[in-house]
Amino acid sequence: MTLAAQATSTAHAALSSLPLSSLLEPASIAIIGASRDTSRIGGVALDHLRRLGYRGAVYPVNPRYAEIGELPCYPDIESVPRTPDVAVLALGAEDVLPQLRRCHAVGIRAAILYASGFAEAGEAGVARQAELSAFARDSGMAIAGPNCMGLANLTTRAVTAFATTFRAFPPQDGPGRVSLLTQSGNVCAIVYATGRQMDVGFHQFINTGNEACLDYADYLDYLAGDAQTGIVVGYVEGLRDGPRFIDAAARLRAAGKPLILLKAGESEAGSSATQSHTAVLAGNQAIYRAAFAQLGAMQARDPAHLTDLAYLAGFHQRSAGGRVVVASVSGAMGALSADLLSAAGLAVPPLDPALQQRLQAAVPEIGGVANPVDMTGNLFNREGLAYAVLDHLAADPGTDVIFLYATAYLLDRVAGELIDVAGKTSRLIVVATTGEPASRERLAAAGIALFPDVARAAQALGTYVGWLGTAAPTARWMALRAQSAAGGAGDVPDASLDEYQAKQWLAGFGVPIGAEAVAATPDDAAMAAERIGYPVAVKVLSPDIAHKTEVGGVRLGLADAQQVRAAAAEIVASASRAMPQARQRGLLVQQMTNGVCELIVGVTRDPVFGPAMTVGLGGIFTEIFHDVTHRLLPVDREMAREMLSGLRGYRLMTGFRGKPAADIDAAAAAIAALSDAALALGDQLGEMEVNPLMVRAAGQGAVALDALIVMNGQASGGERHGWEH
Amino acid sequence: MTLAAQATSTAHAALSSLPLSSLLEPASIAIIGASRDTSRIGGVALDHLRRLGYRGAVYPVNPRYAEIGELPCYPDIESVPRTPDVAVLALGAEDVLPQLRRCHAVGIRAAILYASGFAEAGEAGVARQAELSAFARDSGMAIAGPNCMGLANLTTRAVTAFATTFRAFPPQDGPGRVSLLTQSGNVCAIVYATGRQMDVGFHQFINTGNEACLDYADYLDYLAGDAQTGIVVGYVEGLRDGPRFIDAAARLRAAGKPLILLKAGESEAGSSATQSHTAVLAGNQAIYRAAFAQLGAMQARDPAHLTDLAYLAGFHQRSAGGRVVVASVSGAMGALSADLLSAAGLAVPPLDPALQQRLQAAVPEIGGVANPVDMTGNLFNREGLAYAVLDHLAADPGTDVIFLYATAYLLDRVAGELIDVAGKTSRLIVVATTGEPASRERLAAAGIALFPDVARAAQALGTYVGWLGTAAPTARWMALRAQSAAGGAGDVPDASLDEYQAKQWLAGFGVPIGAEAVAATPDDAAMAAERIGYPVAVKVLSPDIAHKTEVGGVRLGLADAQQVRAAAAEIVASASRAMPQARQRGLLVQQMTNGVCELIVGVTRDPVFGPAMTVGLGGIFTEIFHDVTHRLLPVDREMAREMLSGLRGYRLMTGFRGKPAADIDAAAAAIAALSDAALALGDQLGEMEVNPLMVRAAGQGAVALDALIVMNGQASGGERHGWEH
Repeated sequence: MTLAAQATSTAHAALSSLPLSSLLEPASIAIIGASRDTSRIGGVALDHLRRLGYRGAVYPVNPRYAEIGELPCYPDIESVPRTPDVAVLALGAEDVLPQLRRCHAVGIRAAILYASGFAEAGEAGVARQAELSAFARDSGMAIAGPNCMGLANLTTRAVTAFATTFRAFPPQDGPGRVSLLTQSGNVCAIVYATGRQMDVGFHQFINTGNEACLDYADYLDYLAGDAQTGIVVGYVEGLRDGPRFIDAAARLRAAGKPLILLKAGESEAGSSATQSHTAVLAGNQAIYRAAFAQLGAMQARDPAHLTDLAYLAGFHQRSAGGRVVVASVSGAMGALSADLLSAAGLAVPPLDPALQQRLQAAVPEIGGVANPVDMTGNLFNREGLAYAVLDHLAADPGTDVIFLYATAYLLDRVAGELIDVAGKTSRLIVVATTGEPASRERLAAAGIALFPDVARAAQALGTYVGWLGTAAPTARWMALRAQSAAGGAGDVPDASLDEYQAKQWLAGFGVPIGAEAVAATPDDAAMAAERIGYPVAVKVLSPDIAHKTEVGGVRLGLADAQQVRAAAAEIVASASRAMPQARQRGLLVQQMTNGVCELIVGVTRDPVFGPAMTVGLGGIFTEIFHDVTHRLLPVDREMAREMLSGLRGYRLMTGFRGKPAADIDAAAAAIAALSDAALALGDQLGEMEVNPLMVRAAGQGAVALDALIVMNGQASGGERHGWEH
Repeated sequence: MTLAAQATSTAHAALSSLPLSSLLEPASIAIIGASRDTSRIGGVALDHLRRLGYRGAVYPVNPRYAEIGELPCYPDIESVPRTPDVAVLALGAEDVLPQLRRCHAVGIRAAILYASGFAEAGEAGVARQAELSAFARDSGMAIAGPNCMGLANLTTRAVTAFATTFRAFPPQDGPGRVSLLTQSGNVCAIVYATGRQMDVGFHQFINTGNEACLDYADYLDYLAGDAQTGIVVGYVEGLRDGPRFIDAAARLRAAGKPLILLKAGESEAGSSATQSHTAVLAGNQAIYRAAFAQLGAMQARDPAHLTDLAYLAGFHQRSAGGRVVVASVSGAMGALSADLLSAAGLAVPPLDPALQQRLQAAVPEIGGVANPVDMTGNLFNREGLAYAVLDHLAADPGTDVIFLYATAYLLDRVAGELIDVAGKTSRLIVVATTGEPASRERLAAAGIALFPDVARAAQALGTYVGWLGTAAPTARWMALRAQSAAGGAGDVPDASLDEYQAKQWLAGFGVPIGAEAVAATPDDAAMAAERIGYPVAVKVLSPDIAHKTEVGGVRLGLADAQQVRAAAAEIVASASRAMPQARQRGLLVQQMTNGVCELIVGVTRDPVFGPAMTVGLGGIFTEIFHDVTHRLLPVDREMAREMLSGLRGYRLMTGFRGKPAADIDAAAAAIAALSDAALALGDQLGEMEVNPLMVRAAGQGAVALDALIVMNGQASGGERHGWEH
């Protein structure tokens, strides 16, 4: 467990017993600072609760009114006749804490704070938020916000969010399955609005605000256990506590609930906006992406894609996979659909010739039957054409998903035939259309996914199908993480290591190292070289020098004792000149090793998620093409193999242009061993790197030619290479 | 001029005098096969013409009726009282040609053919289409189709297309500026419908069908000269005649009219659908992309993107550029906007500190002023906040485009302030919103671009701004193309060349070659090597062996005469064993040359566009990362430099990790010389390649180490490397 995790676990020790259900499923609501003006923040929620048909008790609190609408209004929270489940504080920042104390005193267990003026607003705000957090911890109240838009339970209509979107886009009739969990009220409202336009049924509408008490992981954990929530749709700017987020995501995954995430901060500009917005540091984007993938979350690119994924995930009762057959009323739209599906990572393979022959009987001569299937506009006049084609396609064992394009006009014409086919198959059917089909509701009732644009449909399907394949690796990693040792061993070094020590530490976990020896003098170096065998490399040995080459501290390919002696003397002199303060511990004499390719394997400590591994091929792969891949630890051999095969340059390892194949098993074993070595350092780990890991031909192993271990809080002796992207 | 171009130029010699204006701006229309049933193909156009208010004369022709609606109906075309500008033939394929002859006989100069059953429909159809083409050529009639949806002039309401979309989405009031030119009726209708939803005003609605007479380039050329057309939006499956398309695109560009294109066939599946659909072979996608870029066309990814670009191009009277300031009512949406804009290739740079200070006075403390500017939801209550912020931003010299996100609700609130600012600045203002703003029309009238989705807005803006930068290079290339010699020189070789001959030919145009000599025997080879200086390479010399290494025909790094003699003997024996039929012309002895990097430079003959150049860095750059770039010829030194700097691996040439910088000028000169050499071969060119072009350190030049010239119609002696992508 990392330091960060330990710290937050303490702070949140009692959270699992926090009354989140009072907050999220309230049977009664007090609104402190209630207003008669439905355009004011204290009036919007009251208006929503009345109009949307909330059936619980509502207690407006405001000394200025005796009643608001048909509800009695109370002068203060102490006058409210029954203790409400939740108090909504429509008050300014300075009034929040005093009112919260009074709420707590009357036994209220949950509160929602709209007020801004906390951690996002300067030094005074930070102090105010610290006080609020302390109160929350001591009181055990479940507190949402501050600086949030309020919450909404669309199933019970407990809508306390002041978003006007509920007026323009009313909730569905009856309960919903999709819960929103966002670090922005606006994004929550936008995804809600666009989702409602696609008839998505929502349950929770949660925006976390400043997370002074409840944080993202708390809500996520709650939703994992919430029977009504089937899908979680999230927007993330920055997480406070990676390990608890991982635990919650694991629970969601185990419960079979898709988690769909959009992360801000891909660009420098976006990232700076994110920081100032929620006062949470945006973590390293590449690690976020890797972590989300590893946790089996679907990742959206933009708000519309997020909505589309939430919509499509609602069709999970239908089977899906990567082989798509396209049927269209237009050859061009079929071709464009195939282009877009392929670009989204899906296959649009030619249909079996026998099937094509069967289709030929149904499809007009000017159409096409290979895939895309072009049914042509003739289906307007030929009743049964669409049914015949789609029925054949639905029975094709080589197809996972049916993708149909039709204009709204033609879609309405064949909706009945399509619905008949949908009733006979359990496969996913995705329809893209242009215009507004009258058959929308009938298609939805038949379990057919309908998108208003072919590109959006293709992109959503690509992401969704890609996500389906993550179930097994996610489960494996979750199990691996659970098994992995929780803390560092007793004999963890207390200072950064020199190269020799680093390799010895790594070797203890199975990282392969070559023949090498430490020599005190140039003569000793020559003697060591004689024992090891030529050619050798000689390097300066110092825990303070991370970039040995730059100080003239490395000489390669030395062929005899004389060369070694001369090189050793030069190295010592040169390194002393360049870095006179660096502790020199003599010379490292090392056997030269060639191989098929060089890997860079490193572990860094991500501020949110803890230790994370990066693997890349050396040289231009890393430096020009940024061809690297990341995983949270632990990484075992199978994951290491996946990391390697995920590199674009992987072909270099499998026998490229006459080169022998590399020893991928040995490379994977070395990567997994490095993961073990990093985890064994526990919170003492700063960063760890093998660069290069020379991978030899298949069967001949791999060798760590250089290694670096920096302990937590200690500098690494110079700038690192900029190879993480 | 290529063979293909010559052939088509003959066929189309008379086209410039074809009566396209009768077809596209008809003052009177006959509909042969007119129907009273508005759901039938012969009835839809009549219905459109009446409902949409076409003011020209309309003559229904059908012996079964005396009148249709309030119009007299004529038994045959000969009975029509005045000669119509265009005849629409709503007839089956077999009736088309006889009717056309009768139309021609009465003096009709243009016709529109709906009928399918031509080249897209088997052998009989192909014959029928050939007959039709011959008639068109002989008669001089301007004939659209067959197998097209009909045309529409939305300005005059001469709507003969049978698309039902005109009922759901009526045309704008008054004339439009955007002309559609598509190789699919459905795509034409879809872009029309989505464009109308964004209030795009359309002029021509052209879908080309089978292009039996008029082809894509004919229409494009017409639109270039059409005063009413300001923007051309196209969908392309495959072009018949690249050179004429280029000429038309050049005219469009010279007239300052944006050309926006979507090309199908990116995927294998899409490509196969395209072929069967229009009976036009889809050309090489990479060359299409390169050609479109070189012609200064905007390239869309999907139909929605195409529509968005057409819409955005309508704001070309406003200035735009790559530096975008984001203003938002939500920190999160500002951050996501910045992410999406950056991903689209735009810069969202931090604002000048002095400007930030000025903004600070207007923006609430919880907002942000760096860029993105977060105005916060407070602008709802604070009148003048949006104006103050946007007015500052509009005056910022460091900003090219203002990008605003606001929910429809807040947008309506600040629309007046935004419109005031728009009136003061000539800069492009792009607004993305969620929901349906009531202020839509007012914003449009003020010249503000409004998108319903932030990702679509960002993507359109990125493509549009990228396109703005293409004006100068396009103009330069067009001029270069006009200057370039039209045909091959007299002394063009009539058979494929061996390596030595190829290099000599190339050297004549300035491609640098190293010291080398042809030797008849191993002893001669050794003597040549003595003259050239060691080390040398020895290769088998044969016009029939393209892949010398594979037949054991190459030995590198030979250090003395004895090695040369032995290697030469082995090479001859090995090549003879492997390819006994190949003509051997002795041995090539060549000086070994090292350098900074190796380039692959090749010219191929694209079936549509003619000679096209491909440049890439050797090895993994080309083979693993497909890091290559393409241009149509001619390529001069400046273009060659652009090709090189457009490679992702270009860093390798500018001094990568301590390596010297490469002689980029010499490389560019060699590439331009290869372009000259290829053009000089005229239609005899098959393919040409220098691989590798060894580029030495700056100032030391470049050397073509191997070269291949294959004449048109001759095999290249084996499979080529698969390096074009």
